[in-house]
Amino acid sequence: MLIGKVVGSVVATQKDEKLADRKFLVVEVRDHHNQPTPQYIVAVDAVGAGQGDVVLYATGSSARQTLLTDGRPCDAVIMAIVDSWDLGGENVYEKWREG
Amino acid sequence: MLIGKVVGSVVATQKDEKLADRKFLVVEVRDHHNQPTPQYIVAVDAVGAGQGDVVLYATGSSARQTLLTDGRPCDAVIMAIVDSWDLGGENVYEKWREG
Amino acid sequence: MLIGKVVGSVVATQKDEKLADRKFLVVEVRDHHNQPTPQYIVAVDAVGAGQGDVVLYATGSSARQTLLTDGRPCDAVIMAIVDSWDLGGENVYEKWREG
Amino acid sequence: MLIGKVVGSVVATQKDEKLADRKFLVVEVRDHHNQPTPQYIVAVDAVGAGQGDVVLYATGSSARQTLLTDGRPCDAVIMAIVDSWDLGGENVYEKWREG
Amino acid sequence: MLIGKVVGSVVATQKDEKLADRKFLVVEVRDHHNQPTPQYIVAVDAVGAGQGDVVLYATGSSARQTLLTDGRPCDAVIMAIVDSWDLGGENVYEKWREG
Repeated sequence: MLIGKVVGSVVATQKDEKLADRKFLVVEVRDHHNQPTPQYIVAVDAVGAGQGDVVLYATGSSARQTLLTDGRPCDAVIMAIVDSWDLGGENVYEKWREG
Repeated sequence: MLIGKVVGSVVATQKDEKLADRKFLVVEVRDHHNQPTPQYIVAVDAVGAGQGDVVLYATGSSARQTLLTDGRPCDAVIMAIVDSWDLGGENVYEKWREG
Repeated sequence: MLIGKVVGSVVATQKDEKLADRKFLVVEVRDHHNQPTPQYIVAVDAVGAGQGDVVLYATGSSARQTLLTDGRPCDAVIMAIVDSWDLGGENVYEKWREG
Repeated sequence: MLIGKVVGSVVATQKDEKLADRKFLVVEVRDHHNQPTPQYIVAVDAVGAGQGDVVLYATGSSARQTLLTDGRPCDAVIMAIVDSWDLGGENVYEKWREG
Repeated sequence: MLIGKVVGSVVATQKDEKLADRKFLVVEVRDHHNQPTPQYIVAVDAVGAGQGDVVLYATGSSARQTLLTDGRPCDAVIMAIVDSWDLGGENVYEKWREG
């Protein structure tokens, strides 16, 4: 998994029928020091994530191991909303400090 | 998934028999600000995408989760045509503004 | 899939028994303008490709979806020989013009 | 597999239900000379790894081949704690020399 | 598959039980001109490879398609020992010429 921040969403009415009603979020990939990277991914949301949330996402076949993505042409899923993480015991990110 | 723009197509008469009648499109990968990148992918089209369309594509085993690609040696599929996306509430791309 | 050019072949007598009689080709990865890149891949040939052919190859589990690669420790397969492709309607490559 | 060092952990109370009670560790990727790289991964721990341990991790569908990760939306797992490794017969890392 | 050279091995006594008795080799990735790259991979050996051997390795789920790796948390396997390869008809590497 990598850490990312939800920065937007994609609207796509014409899509594979198995993806109806799925929410596609634009996730900016963060490094482990919580700095933005140039990378992004569009992921299906499986945990009720919203704009500004810092999340974990899984890719590949592992992205299809949720009820919302099982058997679907989806290669990235948000499977957790991050509360906090630390490096060497010091918190790098704490959700409650944001906004 | 990543965002890309359909910029061409590949003709290949000699191919694995399970890929007969599949349409191979050349997709230029876009970043999340809709800028072109040097990357590309050749993807099977599962949603009727055409030249100039901005699309979402899935890779790996997830690319085989459509009726057109199931059980086939195909590692990239266009599974949605993008209408629009936003970053922080501002639209980066809107299909109706194009061409 | 990506586009590549067959530039050589690998001889390996000591290999997993399920790979007996499989042909391993060295493929130089091309960009979508048909320029060489520093990347390469060694792929099993499933379509009778030969030296100098421009091909499409698939990777990952999708590389095992041919009769020759099914159930085998092979993560790249040549599944099509390219006749031509275009970008924006102009042909970038045409097989009949080569050699 | 790649070699990494456990440098932190992620707290995420809101996550896919199949990931309840799983421990997410932040792993700094090492090169084969044991030098830090800018890359990281968040992996589920399947072997009781802790802060400062040097580990091996597997990604993709292979990350789901442990009792703790089977059928779960998890694309990286720590499947071994490294005691030592050598390059050309000289040990690059020996666990007992640390701390 | 990519070409690599076996440059070392990893000792790990504490590991997923399904990996007991598996040999983890450190493989330096080579380019197709047989030049070293900064990349490496730790792979399970399925063909009796040893220090200094030039090998082919497969990654992802394809790495689990050998008797030694089936159903195991292993994402890279050495599935062939390279005797030689050529580029454009000229041999780049010949095993018998090595030490």
